[in-house]
Amino acid sequence: MDSDTILLAHGSGGSLMRRLIDEVFVAGFGDSQLSVTDDAATFELPGGRIALSTDTYVVSPLFFPGGDIGRLAVCGTVNDVATSGARPLYLSVGFVLEEGLPVDDLRRILHSMREAAEEAGVHIVTGDTKVVERGHGDGVYINTTGVGVVPEGLSLSAAACRPGDVVLLSGSLGDHGITVVSTREGLEFSTDLRTDAAPLNHLVAAVLDSAPDARCFRDPTRGGLASALNEIADTSGTSITVDETRVPVREQVLGACEMLGYDVFQVANEGKMVAVVPADSAEAALSAMRRAPYGEDAAIIGEVTEAPAGTVYVRTAFGAARVMDMLVGEQLPRIC
Amino acid sequence: MDSDTILLAHGSGGSLMRRLIDEVFVAGFGDSQLSVTDDAATFELPGGRIALSTDTYVVSPLFFPGGDIGRLAVCGTVNDVATSGARPLYLSVGFVLEEGLPVDDLRRILHSMREAAEEAGVHIVTGDTKVVERGHGDGVYINTTGVGVVPEGLSLSAAACRPGDVVLLSGSLGDHGITVVSTREGLEFSTDLRTDAAPLNHLVAAVLDSAPDARCFRDPTRGGLASALNEIADTSGTSITVDETRVPVREQVLGACEMLGYDVFQVANEGKMVAVVPADSAEAALSAMRRAPYGEDAAIIGEVTEAPAGTVYVRTAFGAARVMDMLVGEQLPRIC
Repeated sequence: MDSDTILLAHGSGGSLMRRLIDEVFVAGFGDSQLSVTDDAATFELPGGRIALSTDTYVVSPLFFPGGDIGRLAVCGTVNDVATSGARPLYLSVGFVLEEGLPVDDLRRILHSMREAAEEAGVHIVTGDTKVVERGHGDGVYINTTGVGVVPEGLSLSAAACRPGDVVLLSGSLGDHGITVVSTREGLEFSTDLRTDAAPLNHLVAAVLDSAPDARCFRDPTRGGLASALNEIADTSGTSITVDETRVPVREQVLGACEMLGYDVFQVANEGKMVAVVPADSAEAALSAMRRAPYGEDAAIIGEVTEAPAGTVYVRTAFGAARVMDMLVGEQLPRIC
Repeated sequence: MDSDTILLAHGSGGSLMRRLIDEVFVAGFGDSQLSVTDDAATFELPGGRIALSTDTYVVSPLFFPGGDIGRLAVCGTVNDVATSGARPLYLSVGFVLEEGLPVDDLRRILHSMREAAEEAGVHIVTGDTKVVERGHGDGVYINTTGVGVVPEGLSLSAAACRPGDVVLLSGSLGDHGITVVSTREGLEFSTDLRTDAAPLNHLVAAVLDSAPDARCFRDPTRGGLASALNEIADTSGTSITVDETRVPVREQVLGACEMLGYDVFQVANEGKMVAVVPADSAEAALSAMRRAPYGEDAAIIGEVTEAPAGTVYVRTAFGAARVMDMLVGEQLPRIC
């Protein structure tokens, strides 16, 4: 490369941009299906139902224990596509780079994206890069958009949840949010706390194999478990009760939440999946989840009841019940 | 809405974000196919070849004569999908909003996106919104990703261009770039200069109807006609010669380029299409282009020759030939 840092000219559409694409992006992604000379990538798909999901990642800082914005950008969108039951196949990537970004930081991010894409089994097929002046971004913002194929006959929907259904969670809450905020603020709650960012498409597929009558999946990212469950309750016109003692949370995450005044149910996760399944399928779904990658700590955490519609409760260790509210106001900006 | 400006809490994943989505985005897009309660949108597609294209828009200022970042974000991606010959059908939209953005500005942008999407005949089916702190963005950055279906049997590629082929351009060069830079810098070259941002998918379809053996399409955006033609020459191992006298350019654009020291062939366009077709099909393609929306000023501007491979020439009014170079360095940042 001609420069160790990103220049405005790298976004010009001219010859420097061409070199950035060839020497950094193509080399970094190393995906033979990446289309570099055409404005659109093309690929064959079987006919049927297609899932499309998009997310822009603005996490600050760019690097944190266990991951970085690149891993997040691939896993987050893979997981959003997977929530529909679709098999994620292709990703597009749009970068907004800030003038002055070290090219080595970009290479590191691309390497993480490549690793996460390989793990998920998706191909990065097309991309775009813009450069903004120093001070007008935060190093890198990344948009990823994912395309997946929904298996024939499958139609998952939060609206399908019924009283008696069971709520599963694939692992411990809050790891991502607490890791990012403690890195950003220079807090050290623990030396081994790290983001949970991970692709969960294989886990979702495994649950659907064992429990094909699953109602819906949600990944509890921004707004945490509280937003995910309130949306499900709201869409299906049901109530959900979560048993607090059954929700896996790491001790250091609980401690950090107490210290910072956060509700762990509202903290973001990037490698966790919520599933709602009929009671009859709960054990099969749970053991499939536990056998799947990133699901070893999965638990049945609650159940769907009839009323009051659109409300989520937490049953505490002392048997009391309180409402699990959605986040009001702002807690953790720039978390993903 | 609870606030006249965007707050960090609007990106929290909590209840304020829910209200922003319901009251501003859903109301603004007004597309019944917009998925608002699921992380992924799903839709039926016929089997076959799918085109996927992504672009992030960081244009500054957000509003300029004839358009805004919203119109740009829809048209740009529609056109990128259309260059593959695909029929664009669905768009995803990812916003990065800056804290403090007036909500009315956002509404105006959404309105432009809706109008452009309706004109192009595409549906905005899924979206995402992030909010960054004041000073870390520029009001709005927008990513759009487009999905289209390639007609069966069609396979366009720059690599297919052959000596003897003819190069068409759908209208005048440089309108977008000069409009944006003159708005930004407070220069007034002309009162009637405006962006050309427009969806060209219907124009591409019309050309393909009349000239089904067309080789390839390119929209000459960043880097202008020079980047588009150099890429074609490079990919196909041919040479291209453009006849300067046949290239439509508005007088005020030429004047601005002279004053600012720009090469009009390197200035960005957002509503122009380049087509390469076999000589036998040139007249049919030209009249189809001229009858299509936004193609009334279309012209045959050049031809493909054998050598030297990968080089583009301009034949001037005096009969001399000079190389049409790709932009080196940086000319107009934040143009799209």
